[in-house]
Amino acid sequence: MPNDRLSTTFAALADPTRRAILARLISGECSVGELAEPFDMSLPAVSKHLRVLERAGLIAQRRDAQWRRCRIEAAPLKLVADWAERYRHTWEERLDRLDEYLGEMKTKEKSHGRKQRRK
Amino acid sequence: MPNDRLSTTFAALADPTRRAILARLISGECSVGELAEPFDMSLPAVSKHLRVLERAGLIAQRRDAQWRRCRIEAAPLKLVADWAERYRHTWEERLDRLDEYLGEMKTKEKSHGRKQRRK
Repeated sequence: MPNDRLSTTFAALADPTRRAILARLISGECSVGELAEPFDMSLPAVSKHLRVLERAGLIAQRRDAQWRRCRIEAAPLKLVADWAERYRHTWEERLDRLDEYLGEMKTKEKSHGRKQRRK
Repeated sequence: MPNDRLSTTFAALADPTRRAILARLISGECSVGELAEPFDMSLPAVSKHLRVLERAGLIAQRRDAQWRRCRIEAAPLKLVADWAERYRHTWEERLDRLDEYLGEMKTKEKSHGRKQRRK
């Protein structure tokens, strides 16, 4: 298992429950119980996901009386966005080619339609 | 192992060799041999990484005579960028708070320096 920062972040994000937890934390700090609510999951199972997110630096946990409260730490998500951004020209080029192709198909269809009507 | 699209993409990206392969493919199609060159890795090991990338839809492979050629498929990377972008305000808010804090520290330091000089 590689343990560079970006690999740890990507591995932590490779799970829909962990991404849903992060999405929930956008609106502010939550207790572990509040985080577990929407999931059909035991508290220990949620805690395990939280540990993975914490190890990746994506959340921070703190004690507040008898509660454990979590908040999002977005710095690693900036790394992910910056990393993906380097490929923007690649997908934009691809979408441009697709647009071009669809444009050509439309032109061909129109001219074919005209020919059909002339018959 | 979750098998939703985004999880498969993140899992495939959670490895520095696979990310290096994608970076190499930005500049255009490559044979498997060319891709293997910069890594101290056997061809079968590289092929295994390529299969993971292919399954995640991040590359496509085609036969060209006796060569296997790979090209990048950036559509899943757009999904990653779009996903991370939703958290932009979270990390920007954080950086703003850090800026504010550093600004306050600077002001305190200056006023402390002035007091020191007055003594």
